[in-house]
Amino acid sequence: MTADRIGVGMLGYAFMGKAHSRALLALRHLDVPLRPELVSISGRDARAVEEARARWGWAEATTDWREQVADERIGLFVNGGPNAVHAEPTIAAARAGKHVLCEKPLGMSAAESHEMWQAAERAGVRHLCGFNYRFVPAVRLARELLEAGELGEVVHFRARYLQSWGWDADASLWRFDPAQAGTGALGDLGTHVVGLARYLVGEIVSVSARVRTIVPDRAVDDHVVATIEFENGLLGTVEASRLARGRINSNAFEVNGSKGSLAFDVERLNELEVADTKSFRRVLVTEPEHPFMRHWWPPGHILGWGDTFTHQLAHLLEAIAGEHDVAPHGATFEDGYRCDEVVEAMLRSAESGRSEAVASR
Amino acid sequence: MTADRIGVGMLGYAFMGKAHSRALLALRHLDVPLRPELVSISGRDARAVEEARARWGWAEATTDWREQVADERIGLFVNGGPNAVHAEPTIAAARAGKHVLCEKPLGMSAAESHEMWQAAERAGVRHLCGFNYRFVPAVRLARELLEAGELGEVVHFRARYLQSWGWDADASLWRFDPAQAGTGALGDLGTHVVGLARYLVGEIVSVSARVRTIVPDRAVDDHVVATIEFENGLLGTVEASRLARGRINSNAFEVNGSKGSLAFDVERLNELEVADTKSFRRVLVTEPEHPFMRHWWPPGHILGWGDTFTHQLAHLLEAIAGEHDVAPHGATFEDGYRCDEVVEAMLRSAESGRSEAVASR
Amino acid sequence: MTADRIGVGMLGYAFMGKAHSRALLALRHLDVPLRPELVSISGRDARAVEEARARWGWAEATTDWREQVADERIGLFVNGGPNAVHAEPTIAAARAGKHVLCEKPLGMSAAESHEMWQAAERAGVRHLCGFNYRFVPAVRLARELLEAGELGEVVHFRARYLQSWGWDADASLWRFDPAQAGTGALGDLGTHVVGLARYLVGEIVSVSARVRTIVPDRAVDDHVVATIEFENGLLGTVEASRLARGRINSNAFEVNGSKGSLAFDVERLNELEVADTKSFRRVLVTEPEHPFMRHWWPPGHILGWGDTFTHQLAHLLEAIAGEHDVAPHGATFEDGYRCDEVVEAMLRSAESGRSEAVASR
Amino acid sequence: MTADRIGVGMLGYAFMGKAHSRALLALRHLDVPLRPELVSISGRDARAVEEARARWGWAEATTDWREQVADERIGLFVNGGPNAVHAEPTIAAARAGKHVLCEKPLGMSAAESHEMWQAAERAGVRHLCGFNYRFVPAVRLARELLEAGELGEVVHFRARYLQSWGWDADASLWRFDPAQAGTGALGDLGTHVVGLARYLVGEIVSVSARVRTIVPDRAVDDHVVATIEFENGLLGTVEASRLARGRINSNAFEVNGSKGSLAFDVERLNELEVADTKSFRRVLVTEPEHPFMRHWWPPGHILGWGDTFTHQLAHLLEAIAGEHDVAPHGATFEDGYRCDEVVEAMLRSAESGRSEAVASR
Repeated sequence: MTADRIGVGMLGYAFMGKAHSRALLALRHLDVPLRPELVSISGRDARAVEEARARWGWAEATTDWREQVADERIGLFVNGGPNAVHAEPTIAAARAGKHVLCEKPLGMSAAESHEMWQAAERAGVRHLCGFNYRFVPAVRLARELLEAGELGEVVHFRARYLQSWGWDADASLWRFDPAQAGTGALGDLGTHVVGLARYLVGEIVSVSARVRTIVPDRAVDDHVVATIEFENGLLGTVEASRLARGRINSNAFEVNGSKGSLAFDVERLNELEVADTKSFRRVLVTEPEHPFMRHWWPPGHILGWGDTFTHQLAHLLEAIAGEHDVAPHGATFEDGYRCDEVVEAMLRSAESGRSEAVASR
Repeated sequence: MTADRIGVGMLGYAFMGKAHSRALLALRHLDVPLRPELVSISGRDARAVEEARARWGWAEATTDWREQVADERIGLFVNGGPNAVHAEPTIAAARAGKHVLCEKPLGMSAAESHEMWQAAERAGVRHLCGFNYRFVPAVRLARELLEAGELGEVVHFRARYLQSWGWDADASLWRFDPAQAGTGALGDLGTHVVGLARYLVGEIVSVSARVRTIVPDRAVDDHVVATIEFENGLLGTVEASRLARGRINSNAFEVNGSKGSLAFDVERLNELEVADTKSFRRVLVTEPEHPFMRHWWPPGHILGWGDTFTHQLAHLLEAIAGEHDVAPHGATFEDGYRCDEVVEAMLRSAESGRSEAVASR
Repeated sequence: MTADRIGVGMLGYAFMGKAHSRALLALRHLDVPLRPELVSISGRDARAVEEARARWGWAEATTDWREQVADERIGLFVNGGPNAVHAEPTIAAARAGKHVLCEKPLGMSAAESHEMWQAAERAGVRHLCGFNYRFVPAVRLARELLEAGELGEVVHFRARYLQSWGWDADASLWRFDPAQAGTGALGDLGTHVVGLARYLVGEIVSVSARVRTIVPDRAVDDHVVATIEFENGLLGTVEASRLARGRINSNAFEVNGSKGSLAFDVERLNELEVADTKSFRRVLVTEPEHPFMRHWWPPGHILGWGDTFTHQLAHLLEAIAGEHDVAPHGATFEDGYRCDEVVEAMLRSAESGRSEAVASR
Repeated sequence: MTADRIGVGMLGYAFMGKAHSRALLALRHLDVPLRPELVSISGRDARAVEEARARWGWAEATTDWREQVADERIGLFVNGGPNAVHAEPTIAAARAGKHVLCEKPLGMSAAESHEMWQAAERAGVRHLCGFNYRFVPAVRLARELLEAGELGEVVHFRARYLQSWGWDADASLWRFDPAQAGTGALGDLGTHVVGLARYLVGEIVSVSARVRTIVPDRAVDDHVVATIEFENGLLGTVEASRLARGRINSNAFEVNGSKGSLAFDVERLNELEVADTKSFRRVLVTEPEHPFMRHWWPPGHILGWGDTFTHQLAHLLEAIAGEHDVAPHGATFEDGYRCDEVVEAMLRSAESGRSEAVASR
């Protein structure tokens, strides 16, 4: 526990602000090479920021993220604010030499995300885009099994992220405002699916998508379906919805290969279904050998959703300390950008009614 | 048990021949208005037909289905042969005034299926296309719940039929020969999915599909993915594969509506998952009130896949006896035809790379 | 299909009469060495027997089982009547040289069951007690895995048979009448559990049981719990109830060994959960290599509860034809008797409040 | 976040020490009426205690718990050490006026536990025994449903706590040493089951148990089975094992009532299966109305095992602040004691071979 320290500044105090604050607090007591100091938190609503500061133990609160960018005590800038305030503060922080973690979706467009990626690269800082589901133990295990060739040649991918809160939600949420959120289910949930597809299988080269806004008077989409084609020609299906009754937070995927298969659902976050050529095995992913388990309990004592943020920040701190790169297990800004290109190809496809190639700048 | 009798002639002696023979034998002892007499069985291989005749108790065997068409003792012609011999014998039988049951896919093309439908209609006979999954108790219950409005407005449909035998199969099977089978996973499995989509949700108006042949040297497809649009604008996803390791016979669908959801998998044929606005309930569909259950056991004593053929033939016999129409619960030749139009739109879409409208003659 | 024939006489026309009739009809078309002829059916209610005769195609009906015993055309006597009429007709049939299948529980007491066993042995006929769950494909597979040592040394057994119809049942059912049924949940369901325990693990040497009648005015038990000790000292738990809401026909067991485990539930009759030292695998027991599967479909096409009767009768016909013994896979009258000794030890234990040794005559 | 403060001293630095330390740290940032200050940690191994101190941020470390008892800054004493050091330090702390939380099993015997309870009562301090599974959200929901009468009259209870690490464990663990652990699976796992039985259903009046030590050379039991009788006459089954292959941490129960049922397994900690008179519903227990959810995330974002310790300590802090009593939702030392009486009755029953009444001092 004699780790060096790193000062952290965070923008955002709501859902993501809470998730990152708790993870930072947990990491002050875990084996990471840099011990996070909670220097300052920022946001537009002075009272809410101050309340978050006091609750989570940030040393200072501010309504101006520029103060954080200028703050020499801060070595890592975490952006957990609404999508519309991702780019400018994150780019500024990177240019000021701070390592950056920005929530997904990265920018409001692929162009903006590309700019963020380029800026972070040019600044030579570590950059991570908050695809936290990569830090579910079962998802990491899935990736490792795939890399080890346990499934043979991958031939199919199918995934869907289904929630149901959209039916009853308050229409004034920022998530329903195109100016703040960009898109709806597509950007919020579809990006997670695309992020997992890319992490587990590889680059997506073309998409055929359809998008719907079903609940009257909503300004953003609430349902998207797509077929996708990967680099090597294999096909997949993708779906995202906030209107699937009975599904609360069901981010689920299945990968089929020539020698076996994998299936997962975030609602059973600690389980990975692993098939050989015959049948599926339910693996409770809590074995001590797993890279995330050194922080936790004996086998069979399950983890929660919030713990994925702890794993993600631990990974970033290790990367900052030079222990490994952010990629491939952490999503970089490049991943955030490439995900946005897939999303934009989906929107073009929904418009054109045809398969659209995924662009690359 | 004083039912009238109906003579049955069947073409086909392999998998489907066995399924229909067993169902006919069972129906000789169940409450149906017409008691089936097994008059004759036909097929190209004289020895195999004779063997099937002796095993299943058919009175006669022949290698010429024309004899069956001319046989006045036969009132119902069941065609369970390979796809390429569906149209001609079935049309001839219908023209000879026999009621007809033909396996799916109906014809080798939508045009041929249309011709079969028109011929059966003009002949004024009852016609049923063998989409036997409509006769799974849980599927009937699903349809009844949907009709009763239990799910509210339907908004999503997703389904996939996954098997894995394709990896290890004998390449000489007729199912891999385009001349006999037409297509591969698409016609064999995809048609079941399309059939269920139409039965449960409604007409499909456009499709965007991609098709692959993955196993080297196969002459038919072994994987298809598609997004579909129904009449009312709602979207769905469809997939069929013979290469999904760990999935043996997983014909699964989920329907989401504004008030609830349904989920089903043929591998758990006796169960229907039913959600209200909150959570899924596992219903063991063996209640005595269910229309198929009068033939069977007390609650909780489950049925097998073969029993769906018994239900289907009972339904057809009742329709022949005038108790009800074949539609909507049985698939008619119109259903077989409309399913083929969807399949052909999928093939066109896979070719064109764009969403294709489903045609109607 | 050139098998020799065997004439069958059956006592009983209700639930078990239906199950055995259907199985016999099915076996007329399957590969068994003796083709069953349905010679005569008997029962006390003339009208009901005649109705059953006509429905299931028995050649004759009688209200006097003695006619069946005297009937030289009959080579196999199947007793599917209420428990109180198991012993006398079955013993008489055996003494007349007929092979005998009697439903479980075998006699009204261990003494009576012992007499039945001895009589059948002395008569030199084949005898089978209708523990049909031994003929579930997954249960046979479980036994084979255990015999092959796949689980290592067995250390635990737990099982329970839970139904819920007891809450709402008609009090006039023969199953609630001690004179006809003997006991309640214990004899009806508990015997199945004991039968499986003995088939899978071995002889039970002592039991500690508690029994309750919960629904007011019931004359037989509706709940029993017990701990059991097997020959080798290992322990198990047993439970049977007709009052477990949400459980329809849940006959479930789990066996744990030093190298792996097995779990099964009749509500998912086609599945066996198989664990190695790490995790459980869901095996869909429909592989063509399975000894029961030669009668049926390609993999993944599931079987129903009624099919276990077909397997059981096929097994008995093979034994009669000399292909193998009834034991170990079929339950003999010895098994029926030994099961009753366990049940009586449970009743003694419930009375004495202490562990009771299982007697042996 | 202007809560009053309470100084905490803890004995123990291993598994339980970690669980409580993390919970205390989390509670410094949650809505509880007393903010915990981590004053000092104690244990026999000076180096290990210092390491734990540094890691978890305890202000001081000591090898003598008496210093903690004498420390006026400490208002709450948490005992997470081995079972053999539960009584003396906890009693001393209570006598010194400190509120006390002691891990389960409470004492090394019912007599010792009784003494601890009496001491704490006499001292007038709040006392909680660490049955953390009461603080699983699904378990609390189960209790609330039972209290609300949703299940009608409870008629059956069955539970088992199955692990498998015992096969491969290091024989030198304190858990295998009778002097430190008392019993084996019984005290470690069986107490959890008994604790849940009492919390959910009520007092246990008699038990019939059998106990085994299966792994050679183990000095404590590794398997126990029992039937139990509750105050109102209803029956249950209980089992605990460290040798059930494929079960990692499966603490599972089922309760059946006249109107419905409940089923739960810690391996799926966020789910409660809830049946009405027909079928089971899978409830993901993450709704915002749940009393534990105010600390956490939107619906569908699951919690981990460690979070139950946070809920438990929050509950105790609220009780110390006078917001409610420790009972009934928290286990008191009385609960710890009564649980031990059940355990001792089980040991007597295993010895005597008969049903033994649960004693009460």
